[in-house]
Amino acid sequence: MELHSDEYFMRQALREAFKARDTGEVPVGAVIVSQNQIIARAYNQVERLQDATAHAEMIAVTSAMSYLGTKYLRGCTLYVTLEPCLMCAGALSWSQLDRIVYGTEDPKKGFMRYGKETLHPKTKLEFGILANDCAKVLLDFFKSKRGVKQF
Amino acid sequence: MELHSDEYFMRQALREAFKARDTGEVPVGAVIVSQNQIIARAYNQVERLQDATAHAEMIAVTSAMSYLGTKYLRGCTLYVTLEPCLMCAGALSWSQLDRIVYGTEDPKKGFMRYGKETLHPKTKLEFGILANDCAKVLLDFFKSKRGVKQF
Repeated sequence: MELHSDEYFMRQALREAFKARDTGEVPVGAVIVSQNQIIARAYNQVERLQDATAHAEMIAVTSAMSYLGTKYLRGCTLYVTLEPCLMCAGALSWSQLDRIVYGTEDPKKGFMRYGKETLHPKTKLEFGILANDCAKVLLDFFKSKRGVKQF
Repeated sequence: MELHSDEYFMRQALREAFKARDTGEVPVGAVIVSQNQIIARAYNQVERLQDATAHAEMIAVTSAMSYLGTKYLRGCTLYVTLEPCLMCAGALSWSQLDRIVYGTEDPKKGFMRYGKETLHPKTKLEFGILANDCAKVLLDFFKSKRGVKQF
């Protein structure tokens, strides 16, 4: 696997998703990359914090802004295992980041129901990187929790 | 002014907006009410924190969830001076709160561009409470900052 490839960084986001799973959280992970360096890592912490806004992307965005000392993430790429929800897409839009790369789709809660125009016009979008791995950790989690195969 | 009326609580949200203005932030304020009691107060802190996610509603939601010890805000009402953006509407949707009451419209960034279905189906929506006062604090702010009359 090539260093600094999309697949490499999505693997790092997947590692975050595994941390979420191991603490009983819906397994979604994210990393934010600037100049080929990971500047923020985060996983979903909704249950631990009892805070519905504590999605991996939100934590990563706040963390990256804190690291850079600016309210913008221009030049950065977010890798996230699951298609962001509308809240996270809104946050990403404010951040004006360069690229969003997500793994698997979320047909129920994903922002793409409302279209790409929910993002900042300068933000590029890609998806499907390691989609099967990103979906599997979610499917396995919900299967073990609820005995269902959907998320 | 009747105690526990929408107007009363919107005045409290406006007080938060004034605090934002007085610290150089875009003047938006919010309160969250449960059983006629204010359980969270917040104002926009994007500049101070250099965090694009630090909108009044986001801070109020996290604060109210922390106060109640739950990731839901069922039974609660949010009063906010400006129509929420998509990020905040998404957070409010996850919270499943009872009612959202906003003051003035935000035709550019407001979630209503995408319709009420961005909210939780159980959430009631009202707007226009003290709309002129809520708009005036924003217009005055941007006029003094930029010499323009729009926000």
